[in-house]
Amino acid sequence: MTVVTFDGERARDLDRRHVFHSWSAQALVDPLPIASAEGATFTDHEGRRYLDFASQLVNVNIGYQHPKLVAAIQEQAATLCTVGPGFANDARSEAARLIAELAPGDLNRVFFTNGGAEATENALRMARLATGRHKVLAAYRSYHGATAGAITATGDPRRWANEPGVPGVVHYWGPYLYRSAFHATTPEEETERALQHLRDLIMVEGAGTVAAIILETVVGTNGVLVPPPGYLAGVRAICDEYGIVMIADEVMAGFGRAGEWFAVDHWGVTPDLITFAKGVNSGYVPLGGVIINDAIAVAFQRRAYPGGLTYSGHPLACASAVASIGIFREEGVIEHARALGTDVIGPELAKIAERHPSVGEVRGLGVFWAVELVRDRATREPLVPFNATGADAAPMAAFTAACRERGLWPFTHFNRTHVVPPCTIGERDLRDGLAILDEALTVADRYCTG
Amino acid sequence: MTVVTFDGERARDLDRRHVFHSWSAQALVDPLPIASAEGATFTDHEGRRYLDFASQLVNVNIGYQHPKLVAAIQEQAATLCTVGPGFANDARSEAARLIAELAPGDLNRVFFTNGGAEATENALRMARLATGRHKVLAAYRSYHGATAGAITATGDPRRWANEPGVPGVVHYWGPYLYRSAFHATTPEEETERALQHLRDLIMVEGAGTVAAIILETVVGTNGVLVPPPGYLAGVRAICDEYGIVMIADEVMAGFGRAGEWFAVDHWGVTPDLITFAKGVNSGYVPLGGVIINDAIAVAFQRRAYPGGLTYSGHPLACASAVASIGIFREEGVIEHARALGTDVIGPELAKIAERHPSVGEVRGLGVFWAVELVRDRATREPLVPFNATGADAAPMAAFTAACRERGLWPFTHFNRTHVVPPCTIGERDLRDGLAILDEALTVADRYCTG
Ligand SMILES: Cc1ncc(COP(=O)(O)O)c(C=O)c1O
Ligand SMILES: Cc1ncc(COP(=O)(O)O)c(C=O)c1O
Repeated sequence: MTVVTFDGERARDLDRRHVFHSWSAQALVDPLPIASAEGATFTDHEGRRYLDFASQLVNVNIGYQHPKLVAAIQEQAATLCTVGPGFANDARSEAARLIAELAPGDLNRVFFTNGGAEATENALRMARLATGRHKVLAAYRSYHGATAGAITATGDPRRWANEPGVPGVVHYWGPYLYRSAFHATTPEEETERALQHLRDLIMVEGAGTVAAIILETVVGTNGVLVPPPGYLAGVRAICDEYGIVMIADEVMAGFGRAGEWFAVDHWGVTPDLITFAKGVNSGYVPLGGVIINDAIAVAFQRRAYPGGLTYSGHPLACASAVASIGIFREEGVIEHARALGTDVIGPELAKIAERHPSVGEVRGLGVFWAVELVRDRATREPLVPFNATGADAAPMAAFTAACRERGLWPFTHFNRTHVVPPCTIGERDLRDGLAILDEALTVADRYCTG
Repeated sequence: MTVVTFDGERARDLDRRHVFHSWSAQALVDPLPIASAEGATFTDHEGRRYLDFASQLVNVNIGYQHPKLVAAIQEQAATLCTVGPGFANDARSEAARLIAELAPGDLNRVFFTNGGAEATENALRMARLATGRHKVLAAYRSYHGATAGAITATGDPRRWANEPGVPGVVHYWGPYLYRSAFHATTPEEETERALQHLRDLIMVEGAGTVAAIILETVVGTNGVLVPPPGYLAGVRAICDEYGIVMIADEVMAGFGRAGEWFAVDHWGVTPDLITFAKGVNSGYVPLGGVIINDAIAVAFQRRAYPGGLTYSGHPLACASAVASIGIFREEGVIEHARALGTDVIGPELAKIAERHPSVGEVRGLGVFWAVELVRDRATREPLVPFNATGADAAPMAAFTAACRERGLWPFTHFNRTHVVPPCTIGERDLRDGLAILDEALTVADRYCTG
């Protein structure tokens, strides 16, 4: 019984015959077979090496094949691979203790899931049952996962083909100064108006019907939208005022991505529930969860919590989280991620923005940045339309191809490219990658009309 | 970085402080800390060994810590732990090839998930979009998972606290001769009437509105309800007649549990979609999925499939499935499971039924059996009421305690105990466990009134 190894053709051929791919028309996907990976790079079967500016799906925060994390998985595998959620287990207990210790305030308990979508599902369930209310306010320009509850909360177009969804979700506009829904021109104005919008919505929906406000602390796939000063504290105050549960989705933003353990730490705000996945163990083993404050945990002390899954608190997954948190601490991964943002990515992207007419805005923190591409800086017309596919998306496809040719694997979404390499990337690699991005943006510039 | 090892007290104490448990009132759970496990047994921190007649949550089909499966996970961990769904990967390609090869008919493609609930979610999504219809018929006495879509399809009381669910699910009664919803007295009658009930329901709901019929091939947690001869073929015929997608949930029934690769093999019926999880790799790494026939796959050839998850086709999970399937073949696990059912469990439970007035019925196949307990054989009044908790459930709690005291970890649900040990259990262990069950049933007999 050894590891399966194919040549690239066989891996691709079997994939095309037998693997059904996410979010894709099956005839149009041509997945690149990956043979190996290390640190911030992966390698295909022809030996072509790519610097990964996407961290796969923004999950490989610790980098590929970290030797200590691999060893911890191997050791836990030798000890005990699986135990059901009804038992206690050392790896699970310790993972929960560490995560609770890292989480702000009195978020002291962890419900483990296999990934982000299930974390969303359970956070919504907890909020609904703890409040006895049904409605959930969720942001446009958001992604919370693809199970029925999570995709209904999602604000982006991935929701469309899945409607009608679960009853009781109302979408609101979050802050996004560059394309303000509120005609604001300063961060202060954006914060004030976005909060006013939330209050107005709660007024017309009925405060007593609203169980939760769910938001990505820093909106991820939909644009690395960093909340302006005061916004999160304002949402916290609204939730307190009306007895609404504040759910911070930190599936993408947590565990180093934003240069903090949790992105909320950046603003010193304590939500009632935090969802996590991805960076908690960099996806080495599927894992996610909900961190729960005491008030909500207490609601389920004597009343059964009506949710669960076979692999809740999976020992192999939990052991990898324990090891990953240990490595983050030993190697100063959080501090490194924060410094890369302030010392390298921020300054370099600022220079890049000056050089390229296609760059409308750069924004971010930690290892979590977006470069928003436009046809015209004055009108801010996006380089490609919202949710463009096929020919409409050609400028972004050309940019992507230009990066890949040069050995950089970029993250792109709509009219943006995100700079989201592993949090452990070395400064040299990071600068090399940014230099490639700089070159590839000349391709985007060609589509500018401004 | 080594494996976390606590004494039992510390594991339990941290669990009670920091782990939020599934399906439970948190103050009332007292999870037993498990220190190690091997084959069909697990051991607590005090060194007490339990023979596992539950296979955890009916997922450890291959038994605990199979050395070859552990080795395969360790090797894949050393090679490549994680790759996003947009790439191709050797382990994923091979797992998909093997699963497609095992699946009946033209079920040639696999969409991988992390577990059973996500498999249900995606099967329902595929059926709805492929047919352009919205309604789903799902059975009472069923469990399909706990995300919003899956729990809405679920027929058992775990759905209640999660309502209202997703619009468009209609529940029907499946065959269950011992408590026939159709007043049938023979298997033939039960089949005929259950099919008539389905046809009637389709008539009044409108055939053109029904996307799918979902059923557990053999209903698992809700009673090991083995379909009577002709039922599955009848459902297949109804689906063909009305263009309805037939979804077989084999999360629990598949991969050896029913003495076949897929339980449908027992009846030679080919569904359009099969969902799987649990036994595919015995839960050593979280994994599930949907196996898709050509007609449905074709519907997403040029149109994007609107679903996905970060860990779809996770290499570590897929490598463990490849290894597990290899081990099943090398060691004849399917044949062993089938023989245990016909040669040991069936005959022994028949004898047990004769000896105990509390045993109303025994039924099953492979390593998938139920013992249904009653107060009175004549009236068939259940030993405890439907969905009983607390004092109402005391007779079952007493039975469970009697098993545990004797070193057997039983599976119980409502008024039943299921005999669902690992498929690899040795005949000697199995007979020992059945002897304990036999003894413990004298405790149940005390509650008989008949
Ligand atoms: C913010 C956010 N929430 C939830 C999810 C869903 O996580 P998963 O794909 O593990 O279900 C994602 C995945 O990209 C995410 O970015
Ligand atoms: C028949 C069936 N379907 C679906 C599920 C849900 O699987 P999971 O717990 O992995 O989400 C289960 C779990 O027990 C099951 O037995």
